[in-house]
Amino acid sequence: MPDDQLQRAQSLIRSIPDYPEPGVLFRDITPLLADAVALRAAIDAMIEPFTGTFDVVAGVEARGFLLAGAVAIAAGVGLVPIRKAGKLPRPAASVDYALEYGTATIEAHDEIHPGVNLLLVDDVLATGGTLQAAHSLVRELGGIVVGTSVLIELEALAGRALVGDVHAVFRA
Amino acid sequence: MPDDQLQRAQSLIRSIPDYPEPGVLFRDITPLLADAVALRAAIDAMIEPFTGTFDVVAGVEARGFLLAGAVAIAAGVGLVPIRKAGKLPRPAASVDYALEYGTATIEAHDEIHPGVNLLLVDDVLATGGTLQAAHSLVRELGGIVVGTSVLIELEALAGRALVGDVHAVFRA
Repeated sequence: MPDDQLQRAQSLIRSIPDYPEPGVLFRDITPLLADAVALRAAIDAMIEPFTGTFDVVAGVEARGFLLAGAVAIAAGVGLVPIRKAGKLPRPAASVDYALEYGTATIEAHDEIHPGVNLLLVDDVLATGGTLQAAHSLVRELGGIVVGTSVLIELEALAGRALVGDVHAVFRA
Repeated sequence: MPDDQLQRAQSLIRSIPDYPEPGVLFRDITPLLADAVALRAAIDAMIEPFTGTFDVVAGVEARGFLLAGAVAIAAGVGLVPIRKAGKLPRPAASVDYALEYGTATIEAHDEIHPGVNLLLVDDVLATGGTLQAAHSLVRELGGIVVGTSVLIELEALAGRALVGDVHAVFRA
């Protein structure tokens, strides 16, 4: 896609100081999502390095669902939700992971099956804990993560150290 | 889209008895979502009556995000998340609504603005409480709901009485 469309998409990311707590600069992608041209450019840029390599796209609840749904149609692949604990009727696997305080659990159905080639997407790469857990979940079900693609990488939080190779459309 | 693709999509909806509680027959759309051809056919069928009439699509957290993301790219429009309370940094409006026990709140940013033509989507129309609240939220922000489109309508729950005219791809 033209670079100027991506630059415009980037300009639509809103920075909100002191949210959700003092000292944090929150990156709000909702103005970008609401713009049809910016959304399409951003989604195409998330997919581009992985074109033709994946059969399904997975996103983590909840913001990851917005992007995974968009990527599924843009790439012509199936869509797999990775959900928080207790939301899926027949979880085939679950993974616990550490949060700043306490732990969280993510689960998936067996639509992630042995040998499936899967692209993992999310809106923001921060500390990387959730995406690392999602990698573990896919592997536990025998799936192959062909790539991890995010809209924004928050470089200061060094999430790449946990997740490994990540494609980021924007860096902040 | 060909009817046989839609029939196949319908056959991929899994019915799970006694979930999330005894006596409830849960409709699980994850096998449909994971199938690229079925997903595309279902999304096209959700959009078809409203083609060209809307500028943005809105989905309610969390399963509605999967469908809204897909509809946004398939229709070439912007995407607006309607979120549970406390998830958006700058909510422009919020609406409380009744659940079976207690209440819930949904919020949206001002990307829903006066005069915007909006298609509201969700996976399942059950009692209709959430979609009715979403209609109120859009109206409070001056937006125009050009239509409501769901993948599955559970006719026995009579959600249509609350939500009004709803396009359902499948009925159960």
